[in-house]
Amino acid sequence: MSPSSEVATTLQVSLEERSYPIHIAPGLISRADCLVPYLAGRQVMIVSDDNVAPLYLEALTSALPDGLDVRELVLPAGEQRKNLACVERIWTALLEAGFNRRCTLVALGGGVIGDMVGFAAACYQRGVAFIQVPTTLLAQVDSSVGGKTGVNHPLGKNMIGAFWQPRTVLIDTNSLSTLPPRELSAGLAEVIKYGLIRDAPFLAWLEEHMTALRALDPQALVHAIERSCRLKAEIVAEDETEQGVRALLNLGHTFGHAIETHQGYGSWLHGEAVGTGMLMAAELSHRLGWLDDQQVRRVEAVITSAGLPLAAPADMGADDFLAVMRLDKKNLDDRLRLILLEQLGNACVHDQTPGETLHQLLDDFPRNT
Amino acid sequence: MSPSSEVATTLQVSLEERSYPIHIAPGLISRADCLVPYLAGRQVMIVSDDNVAPLYLEALTSALPDGLDVRELVLPAGEQRKNLACVERIWTALLEAGFNRRCTLVALGGGVIGDMVGFAAACYQRGVAFIQVPTTLLAQVDSSVGGKTGVNHPLGKNMIGAFWQPRTVLIDTNSLSTLPPRELSAGLAEVIKYGLIRDAPFLAWLEEHMTALRALDPQALVHAIERSCRLKAEIVAEDETEQGVRALLNLGHTFGHAIETHQGYGSWLHGEAVGTGMLMAAELSHRLGWLDDQQVRRVEAVITSAGLPLAAPADMGADDFLAVMRLDKKNLDDRLRLILLEQLGNACVHDQTPGETLHQLLDDFPRNT
Repeated sequence: MSPSSEVATTLQVSLEERSYPIHIAPGLISRADCLVPYLAGRQVMIVSDDNVAPLYLEALTSALPDGLDVRELVLPAGEQRKNLACVERIWTALLEAGFNRRCTLVALGGGVIGDMVGFAAACYQRGVAFIQVPTTLLAQVDSSVGGKTGVNHPLGKNMIGAFWQPRTVLIDTNSLSTLPPRELSAGLAEVIKYGLIRDAPFLAWLEEHMTALRALDPQALVHAIERSCRLKAEIVAEDETEQGVRALLNLGHTFGHAIETHQGYGSWLHGEAVGTGMLMAAELSHRLGWLDDQQVRRVEAVITSAGLPLAAPADMGADDFLAVMRLDKKNLDDRLRLILLEQLGNACVHDQTPGETLHQLLDDFPRNT
Repeated sequence: MSPSSEVATTLQVSLEERSYPIHIAPGLISRADCLVPYLAGRQVMIVSDDNVAPLYLEALTSALPDGLDVRELVLPAGEQRKNLACVERIWTALLEAGFNRRCTLVALGGGVIGDMVGFAAACYQRGVAFIQVPTTLLAQVDSSVGGKTGVNHPLGKNMIGAFWQPRTVLIDTNSLSTLPPRELSAGLAEVIKYGLIRDAPFLAWLEEHMTALRALDPQALVHAIERSCRLKAEIVAEDETEQGVRALLNLGHTFGHAIETHQGYGSWLHGEAVGTGMLMAAELSHRLGWLDDQQVRRVEAVITSAGLPLAAPADMGADDFLAVMRLDKKNLDDRLRLILLEQLGNACVHDQTPGETLHQLLDDFPRNT
């Protein structure tokens, strides 16, 4: 399909035989018949959550042609429901429907739904087809590319999962109109991240267009989403199984995960924690002599213009950060690996940060009052 | 490593970047230091069950060199424990140990342990290294090749899982000395299957060496296991995604699955049901004019010499068979697909069996008295 809207665009994610297109345009959910070429067979299960389903499920299903065996499953919303029990509900629903290995799962919702449905697809009968219809900005620019699926374990976030690529991704920018502003800001944190790690001109574009993005200007949204997905796709193509350059995508995430874990999932949004984490990474990069003060202020300004918090939680000491950071998946042989900024638009993996410098930063960084 | 025993052999399973060696020799568990080159890092978790652990766990762990962080986890034995709850116990143990994505899981046990540990490895932090040390003949000749991992769901056997290849497989033929004779026979059913579907000379070799195999002659065992793994590896390499020739591995399984399902899992061993199922397939092939009577008698003789049952359950009528067989995953468009024998050593997929011929066979086939 080629979306006919003037501001529509299609981006191809190149992964050899697992390559797939990302379609981006306003109004795509109501044109879901364009999904048909990507279905594995007649059996289709659309999985959504109880926030998103009332808004978009009917538009999606009624756009599908007759002749398909379409089932719907609505799960409870929320990061705290991103667990194995909910994935089991998907598997049980598939088996109760008698769905075979030629069925297709469609994830309609944010990152939680996308991650869970992708993981359910990866493991149902050892792997079935999967299509993403992400309805949050975070999911659109983050989960659309990379094939990461999975759930949280009581002892750690995203600890159980698989790499599993979708057949296609359908991004309807209109779906952002029902997104709470706080979640839009959280998604913008990831958009800013792509500029910071790899694309200084895009960072400059974001500094100019942040107001348009927050006003949901379709043209600005399509551009920002397309650029974000393209940057992520480039990185993933270079490093599909996350051995090297892909680690750069974790800019701000090591600090951010510490905040999320310490505060309990759901209190800070992921993007909010990443926003603050990126500023912490920029500040640490400054202390290592890479960024000058003015560059750190630019990072601060673009994060604040996206509506994101700039201070860490009041009740988190340096040791609280370090306790979580030491468990980070990127660490090798007990050495802390951080993503830092050599320049704006140029990130690096660094495992030589002196413990004292890091500790000092964690002590000094502003806290919420 | 190159096992030094005279009867040792090593077989390479070729799957491009996921290729791995299968080492086969008596006494390998006590030479587990040969595993070291295949470890991803220092963190090693050996998972076994409460039948196998008392017999071999200490021999395996004490053969590992110092300097590794070796943990042990012993799960309850049995097919009815092949479920997600047991896999969650593995994940919890890994997280409690603080194991990262460079850890290695070692499966020490039969097919249930291998399938569960392989699946746990496939999904822990989206995939970690996995080594198999299969201790039953069935696991040695079946699970060593093909990468199938997974667990049962209350609504279906093996419905949840992943394809995940081991780094290496260590087959210690001495471990068969503690295997109950009934399970040895069940494993021999799968060995015979490889001869029947693809290798007439191997079938003839089995007819000659069945006594030696059942007496656990190391040389005979190493040969039979190596040949079985090689034949399966050839088939899997030709058809990694299970579209065509790989279906031949299901010789005897459609009939056998009907017996297992009707009798309740655990009453007949899988290999026992497959043994009887292969004889049913041979008899049906005879009625279709492919095998002559003498060839069917050869199949019967080799199955009986392995200590396997030759008659179907007394309480199963033709309709009981057909009720289960109609649900088989191989069927397309409601047409029954069976694996039959054009010749001894040459199987085929057949979906043109007249219903009457099949029904007559199911009526006539001997029942237990």
